[in-house]
Amino acid sequence: MSTPTIRYYWEDLQVGSQRDLGSITPTREEILAFAGQFDPQPFHLDDEAAKASVFGALCASGWHTCAMAMRLMVTNFLHEAASLGSPGLESVKWLKPVYPGDTLNLRHSVLESRPMSKRPDVGLVRTQWAMFNQHGEQVLHMEGYGMFRRRHPGAPVPDAPASSPTDA
Amino acid sequence: MSTPTIRYYWEDLQVGSQRDLGSITPTREEILAFAGQFDPQPFHLDDEAAKASVFGALCASGWHTCAMAMRLMVTNFLHEAASLGSPGLESVKWLKPVYPGDTLNLRHSVLESRPMSKRPDVGLVRTQWAMFNQHGEQVLHMEGYGMFRRRHPGAPVPDAPASSPTDA
Repeated sequence: MSTPTIRYYWEDLQVGSQRDLGSITPTREEILAFAGQFDPQPFHLDDEAAKASVFGALCASGWHTCAMAMRLMVTNFLHEAASLGSPGLESVKWLKPVYPGDTLNLRHSVLESRPMSKRPDVGLVRTQWAMFNQHGEQVLHMEGYGMFRRRHPGAPVPDAPASSPTDA
Repeated sequence: MSTPTIRYYWEDLQVGSQRDLGSITPTREEILAFAGQFDPQPFHLDDEAAKASVFGALCASGWHTCAMAMRLMVTNFLHEAASLGSPGLESVKWLKPVYPGDTLNLRHSVLESRPMSKRPDVGLVRTQWAMFNQHGEQVLHMEGYGMFRRRHPGAPVPDAPASSPTDA
């Protein structure tokens, strides 16, 4: 496979910066396929059951919504970033159902950033993911962590805390 | 589709109860298929890139791990529960990589439980999901919320708080 050019290192993810990471539109067939494999609850697979549920109509698994957000994240950002994966998330909120044909836009913001005390070549950022449908309604909110290689390993950083519970 | 018999209502999810929700073994093909669709980072798709990464070998997307946990949750529990979906999670931790052929076991625990003040027919539980591989290593930790229909809507509940920020 082709090796993409790395444009974004830890230093490039400034606190307060925001990125629009494009949009994705799940089809009915994709929603049914994901649910059939991973979340076969009636309101994700069956029109009648969904109509009778709190969602009112067939809707995507919340995990499918997360996975679609990840797809936008990788295609439109991580693909060109020195990403080293994520230790986890501290918040996932499924705010509104996602229906077939909805167009979902992802906005990604950097909330905090600091070097990892035990790994001088790695920096940690805390980020927020916000996904909206075509009506401007937010359907997904997430906050979590990402690890990125540093452009300048071990360089001094102003006001960097010595360590924290999330340090690896 | 067949309508399953509901065995579990909110009242049946006692604080402190644990359930073993079975196991799942992702194949290499399944890991590649999920990553190709939702998380096309090199260490999820390419052996050489994965070998050079922090993961040491090709491994599953963390979102795939979550989705597999959900599959076990639905097949071995929610399928027979009066589940009304989930407003979200307050913690996701990807603790160890998941490799092709790993056998993953899911254990689900009820941490807290209370009625929803604004919806007398619904109760909320806070639950913990713990997934382990065949070596006994924990690969995934999640804590989140689930909403379930009450067997006895509006019945008085001892020590129930009047409301809370997560009330819907």
